[in-house]
Amino acid sequence: MTKKPFAVNITLLPALVPPDYGAYAQVVIDEGINIVETAGNNPGPVIEKLKKANTTILHKCTTIRHAKSAVKLGVDFLSIDGFECAGHVGETDITNFILLSRARQELKTPFIASGGFADGQGLAAALALGAEGINMGTRFMCTIEAPIHINVKQAIVKSDETQTALVMRRWKNTTRLYGNKVAKEALKVEKESKTGEFSDIAPFVSGKRGREVFLNGDIDYGVWTAGQVIGLIHDIPTCAELLQRIEKEAVEALDRSRSLHTATIPSKL
Amino acid sequence: MTKKPFAVNITLLPALVPPDYGAYAQVVIDEGINIVETAGNNPGPVIEKLKKANTTILHKCTTIRHAKSAVKLGVDFLSIDGFECAGHVGETDITNFILLSRARQELKTPFIASGGFADGQGLAAALALGAEGINMGTRFMCTIEAPIHINVKQAIVKSDETQTALVMRRWKNTTRLYGNKVAKEALKVEKESKTGEFSDIAPFVSGKRGREVFLNGDIDYGVWTAGQVIGLIHDIPTCAELLQRIEKEAVEALDRSRSLHTATIPSKL
Repeated sequence: MTKKPFAVNITLLPALVPPDYGAYAQVVIDEGINIVETAGNNPGPVIEKLKKANTTILHKCTTIRHAKSAVKLGVDFLSIDGFECAGHVGETDITNFILLSRARQELKTPFIASGGFADGQGLAAALALGAEGINMGTRFMCTIEAPIHINVKQAIVKSDETQTALVMRRWKNTTRLYGNKVAKEALKVEKESKTGEFSDIAPFVSGKRGREVFLNGDIDYGVWTAGQVIGLIHDIPTCAELLQRIEKEAVEALDRSRSLHTATIPSKL
Repeated sequence: MTKKPFAVNITLLPALVPPDYGAYAQVVIDEGINIVETAGNNPGPVIEKLKKANTTILHKCTTIRHAKSAVKLGVDFLSIDGFECAGHVGETDITNFILLSRARQELKTPFIASGGFADGQGLAAALALGAEGINMGTRFMCTIEAPIHINVKQAIVKSDETQTALVMRRWKNTTRLYGNKVAKEALKVEKESKTGEFSDIAPFVSGKRGREVFLNGDIDYGVWTAGQVIGLIHDIPTCAELLQRIEKEAVEALDRSRSLHTATIPSKL
């Protein structure tokens, strides 16, 4: 695909039959990938293995407590993931306005902001809160280059910010999905299931069916993750156009904001 | 209390016996108060009455749909209230990172940002997203001058961002409260009530008992509202100290962020 450097994500999720994450990490090392994004539960062993191979590790987390644990494990930087994000939002529902400022107050390790970002105004705001940059998922899904069906991109463009759904809270595995028919059915089962068994909802939240959506373009074929940021996305640009626009918007947003302050700050401060 | 200008808030809430909000508005007009913050359900008649008396109106809302309705009713500016806020968060759970950007995209009316603000970095971020300023509630509760019991201020200082509770979702009147014993009992009743009658939870969420907390300093005497921002508040300054610090932090945050960009933007943009 490319001769440029790239990173690999290893997300450790609750699973009936957990994959051999150690083997994943070994493949990453053997293939010479030297940047990995980790996320999820009990990342310790994987992080330890990767750090021994001198891999640069970005760890994504939704709480300050987990961020601190990851720092102790030796990760190089953090991705702070607010409640607005796509996918696994965690169970504490802390928004990025709060979480990024807490990260600035509590952590000495550099961090980037994840969840809710689509434009330069958002980048400027994240920088102001103390982040070193932003991570975009949903926004990049909606670019010319993203290797997913055009129907998915058009669904994102048409949707507003209220069209996501939080499912699997009952099993402490809360996930923000695009609010399609399957996600709504899953929510209904989650609410009404008398047994509370995960197997009741499992057929609805199948990752396999979700991945099919990206290929067959049937928006309602399975569940797929999307952030609240779908409400801010109104076009399908190339990645180059998107990034140039974001740079321009960020500079303009910071210049506008800074220009509002004209007084001299008293020297006693 | 003061000879300086001040504003009055009129919040229209669902109530078993609704107060005569029209009479409230009339008192505001008769007393010569010329700035009012409105919030809540069906504010049309109150806004109409106040606008006829040339009152400047700031309307607080948690959705873009309600913001647009308020603009049609003739309000002068808006307070955009994200999911992180204290009190009535609405039912759509959209965070300020999303909501403020949507407001910038959709509204021509100026807006300020509410919910999640305690410092200058937050102010800088809100400005970058397009707001003209910020509104702080919980942060001002935790100042020397706030006329509430010191125990409440100390509780805010000691708490982290996870110590709020969302209650009354079942009755579409979702409210973010400080997560004390009463709030947790209320949540339990809300979850377990077989009848689903509001009267089951009413004794727990009594506003009268909540107001007593501010006087008697018994944190668990009743429910009281607090935003996720309690996690960012670590001191009890004077209002003057707080505002001077915020100004300084905001300028520094914007200058730091702007300094990260050194390249010239290509002229074709």
